[in-house]
Amino acid sequence: MNNSRRKFVKNMSLGIAAVSTFNPLSKPYADKIKIGVIGTGLRGQAHISTLLKRTDTEITAICDIEPKMLEMSRKLFKDTGKPLPKIFTGDAYAYRKLLDPKSIDAVIIATPWELHTPMILDALAGGLKYIATEVVLGVTLEDHFEVVRSTEKNNAQVMMLENACYRRDTLAITNMVRQGLFGELIHLQGGYQHDLRGVKFNDGITPYNSGAEFGEKGFSEAKWRTNHSVNRNGDLYPTHGVGPLAVMLDINRGNRFESLNSFSTKARGLHNYIAKKGGADHPNTKVLFKLGDVVTTHIKCTNGETILLQHDTNLPRPYSLGFRVQGTGGIWMNLNNGIYIEGQSKYDHERWDDAKEWLEKYDHPLWKRWSKEAYQTGHDGIDFFVMNAFIEAAKRKEPTPMDVYDAASWSAITPLSENSIELGNETVTFPDFTGGKWMSRKNDFASTDAY
Amino acid sequence: MNNSRRKFVKNMSLGIAAVSTFNPLSKPYADKIKIGVIGTGLRGQAHISTLLKRTDTEITAICDIEPKMLEMSRKLFKDTGKPLPKIFTGDAYAYRKLLDPKSIDAVIIATPWELHTPMILDALAGGLKYIATEVVLGVTLEDHFEVVRSTEKNNAQVMMLENACYRRDTLAITNMVRQGLFGELIHLQGGYQHDLRGVKFNDGITPYNSGAEFGEKGFSEAKWRTNHSVNRNGDLYPTHGVGPLAVMLDINRGNRFESLNSFSTKARGLHNYIAKKGGADHPNTKVLFKLGDVVTTHIKCTNGETILLQHDTNLPRPYSLGFRVQGTGGIWMNLNNGIYIEGQSKYDHERWDDAKEWLEKYDHPLWKRWSKEAYQTGHDGIDFFVMNAFIEAAKRKEPTPMDVYDAASWSAITPLSENSIELGNETVTFPDFTGGKWMSRKNDFASTDAY
Repeated sequence: MNNSRRKFVKNMSLGIAAVSTFNPLSKPYADKIKIGVIGTGLRGQAHISTLLKRTDTEITAICDIEPKMLEMSRKLFKDTGKPLPKIFTGDAYAYRKLLDPKSIDAVIIATPWELHTPMILDALAGGLKYIATEVVLGVTLEDHFEVVRSTEKNNAQVMMLENACYRRDTLAITNMVRQGLFGELIHLQGGYQHDLRGVKFNDGITPYNSGAEFGEKGFSEAKWRTNHSVNRNGDLYPTHGVGPLAVMLDINRGNRFESLNSFSTKARGLHNYIAKKGGADHPNTKVLFKLGDVVTTHIKCTNGETILLQHDTNLPRPYSLGFRVQGTGGIWMNLNNGIYIEGQSKYDHERWDDAKEWLEKYDHPLWKRWSKEAYQTGHDGIDFFVMNAFIEAAKRKEPTPMDVYDAASWSAITPLSENSIELGNETVTFPDFTGGKWMSRKNDFASTDAY
Repeated sequence: MNNSRRKFVKNMSLGIAAVSTFNPLSKPYADKIKIGVIGTGLRGQAHISTLLKRTDTEITAICDIEPKMLEMSRKLFKDTGKPLPKIFTGDAYAYRKLLDPKSIDAVIIATPWELHTPMILDALAGGLKYIATEVVLGVTLEDHFEVVRSTEKNNAQVMMLENACYRRDTLAITNMVRQGLFGELIHLQGGYQHDLRGVKFNDGITPYNSGAEFGEKGFSEAKWRTNHSVNRNGDLYPTHGVGPLAVMLDINRGNRFESLNSFSTKARGLHNYIAKKGGADHPNTKVLFKLGDVVTTHIKCTNGETILLQHDTNLPRPYSLGFRVQGTGGIWMNLNNGIYIEGQSKYDHERWDDAKEWLEKYDHPLWKRWSKEAYQTGHDGIDFFVMNAFIEAAKRKEPTPMDVYDAASWSAITPLSENSIELGNETVTFPDFTGGKWMSRKNDFASTDAY
C-alpha cells in the first residue's frame, strides 16, 4: 500500500492525477472503514459478499424493506462469521436513520433506479462524504444537476459503481490508447445488448426466466425495472457502454459530450415474450410498452470524436457490449475480438488480428496486481475493482477515480435520449455538469496499480 | 430459360412480382442485345469483361475521353476474339453520339459519380429504354428527383448496378427473412468500411497505394473521387450497405425511408496519409478535407424499423460492410459471421452460432443455379448477378429488379446526410420518390432463380 501511495503521489507530481476541489480531511489514512448498505436485493447482496471478503471494511448497517432480502443478507454475514450489521427496515424512509456519519464512514446504494437520487441527496444532507451508488445516478435531467450541485456544496464524493470501466479488455485497450497505439481517437462504440426478457418478467418467486409477471406481482428486478420499459423510451442503461469509452476519451477531463441524438425502433419483443410465456390471454399481453426494442444514440464530443451507443434488451440475442475503439492508428472491436494496428499487426489491412495477444501484452497494471482477488468476486472480477476503488479512496480521503461529474454525464444520456426521441429525433445539447471545469481537469483514472 | 420464365410468370400471377407502370414493348423476347458502355476506366473494363463472357450480348460501342483506358478496353475485345466496338471519344460530350436507340438496346454508365445524372438524362432524352448506371445515381437531391421524373415520363428502366444485393451471404439472409426466421424485422445495419486511402491517392500512373497525388495529378479514381472527400461531408457511398437491407425491408414496396440523421467525426486520416506517403512538405498536406473520417447515419422506416449506416474510408482498418439483421426471432451479424435464431440455434441465447451452416442451408436459388458462372466474374461473383439481372430484364422487356425508385432512395442518402450534418445533425425528412406508389408496389427482387 505504501508503495502504491508513493506511486500515486509521484504521479500527481507528474501532473497526471486529478486536479480536484476536494480537500482531504485532517483525519489520517484509515485502516478500516465502516460501511452502510441501502438496498439488499440481489445486487446489494453481491456487494455485501464482495465487502465481506475484505479485512479493511466492516458493514455495520444494512437497510431494505423486503424481509426476504434482509434474511438472505443476514445469511451472508453468518456464513463468513462476521459480526451481524444493524438492520434498518419497516418503511420507505427507514434508510434515513442509517445515514449517520457518526456510525458509518461510507454508504453504498443498490436500490431501484428511481431511488438513487433521493437517497444520495439525503446522504449528502446527512453529512456523509463517501457515497457509492449503483448505476444509474438519476432519472430526470434535474436529478443529475441536483446531485452534482449538492455534492459540490457538501464537498463530498459521489461515485457511481460502473464496473465495466474495469473490464480486463477495456482496461487493456485504455492502456493501449494511452500509449498511443490507436493514434488520435476518432470513433467509439459501446452499448448494452443483453436479452433481459427473462429478467423483466418472472413468476414472482424466482428471479429469472420463470414467468410473465412484473411490477407488484414480479420478483427482484421485475418488480421495478420493467416499469421503466412500460413508461419510457430511450437508452435506459447507457453507463456500461459509455463508461469505458468516456475514460478513453478524457470526458470531463479535457473533452466533453456536446450533443446527442437517439433513434428508436418499434416495440415488439416484450409483448411477444409475455404471449409466449404467459399465453395469449395473459393480462400483461394488454400492456403497451413504450421502450423501443433497439435504441441507438449518437454523441458528439467537443474534440471531434463521435460515440455510438446501443440499447437492446427486449429481443433474443447473445450478450455483447459491442465495443469499438477506432483512431488514426487502428481499430479494435470486441464482437469478433479483432484488432488492427497499422504498421504493427501481423497481416495487411485486409485482415483482423486476434486481439487476444494484444490484450495480454497490454494487460493493465491493476489486473496484473489484483487478478487473484478480482476473480473471487462477481462479474468476472470487475465487481472487485469498482468496490476496491471506492473503499481505497474512502480510506485515503482521496477523490474517487470516477466522480459525480462522470456519474452525471454518463447517466444523463438516458433522459437526453428520451428527450431526443420525444422531439422526433431532434439533436439535443448535452449539458456541461462540470460548469467549465472540464477544460482544466486531468484524467487520472487507473493511472497506477493502486486502485 | 423457358422454365424460369414460366416460374416468373407464375410468381407474377401469385402477386409477388412487381406491379409496374412499365409496359413491355411489342418487340418479342430478344436472344441477343446490343450494348453501349460509357466510361471504360477500371470499373467499366470490369463490366466489359463480364459482358464479353456472355453469348447474349454484343458491346457495339464504347466511349471514354482517356486514350489509355480505351486502349486497355480494346485489348479486352481482342483477347476474346470478339468484334471490336465503335469508339466514341474526343470531348466530354462524345457520349451523346453513342446514345442512339437504333444502334444499341441498352447503355451502361461507369463514369465518375457527378456524370451519372447528366448521362442518364441524355440517354432518356435520346430514347433509350434500358439504362444501367454504376452507383451512385446522382450528387444532389434535385439530381435524384430529375432522374426519377424523366424515367417515368419516358417509360424507361433505370437500374443502378448495386452488386452488394447479390452477395451470397445477404441473399441467403434475405431468403431467411422471407421464410420468417428473423420474425418481424426490427433493426438493421450496414455500411461501407473500407480503407480507401490507397485508392484516393496514387502516383498518377498506377492506381493503388503508390503516392500522395489526386485530382489532375492522380490516376483512375484518385483523379475524381478524392475531390468529393475535399468538398463534401456525408455518407458518400451508402448503396453497398443499404441496398441489401432495403431489399429485406421492402423499401418502396410496402415500406419506405421516412427520416435521416447523420453524425460525422473530425477529418484526420487523409491528411495523415499524405504526410506519410508524400512527406510533411508535400503540397497536398495543405489540403483541408471536409469529409469526416467516420460518418454514421440513422434512417427511420415507416414500418418502425431503424437502419444504421457507416461510412469509414479514411482510416487503417480491415474491410467490412458491417451487416446486422435483427428481428423478433433472431439476429445475424457479418463481422463475426454469427447468428442466433431463437428456438433453432444450437446454443442458448448467450452464444452465437457460426452462420456458415445457416448460409449454406438457405443458399439463395440464384446462387444455387448460377454459382459457376458467377465465380468467373469479379467481386466474388456479384458482378455477374447484377449484370445478368440487367441484361435478362432488357432481353425480356421486363422491369429491372432494382428500379429507379430504389436507385434514387438508396443514393439520395448522400445529399440528405450532407444536409443533416450541415444543419448541425438535424434530422431531415426523407423524400418519397415513388410519390405514394410505395404503398401498393410489391417486392419481387430475386423471387426466382431466373435473374
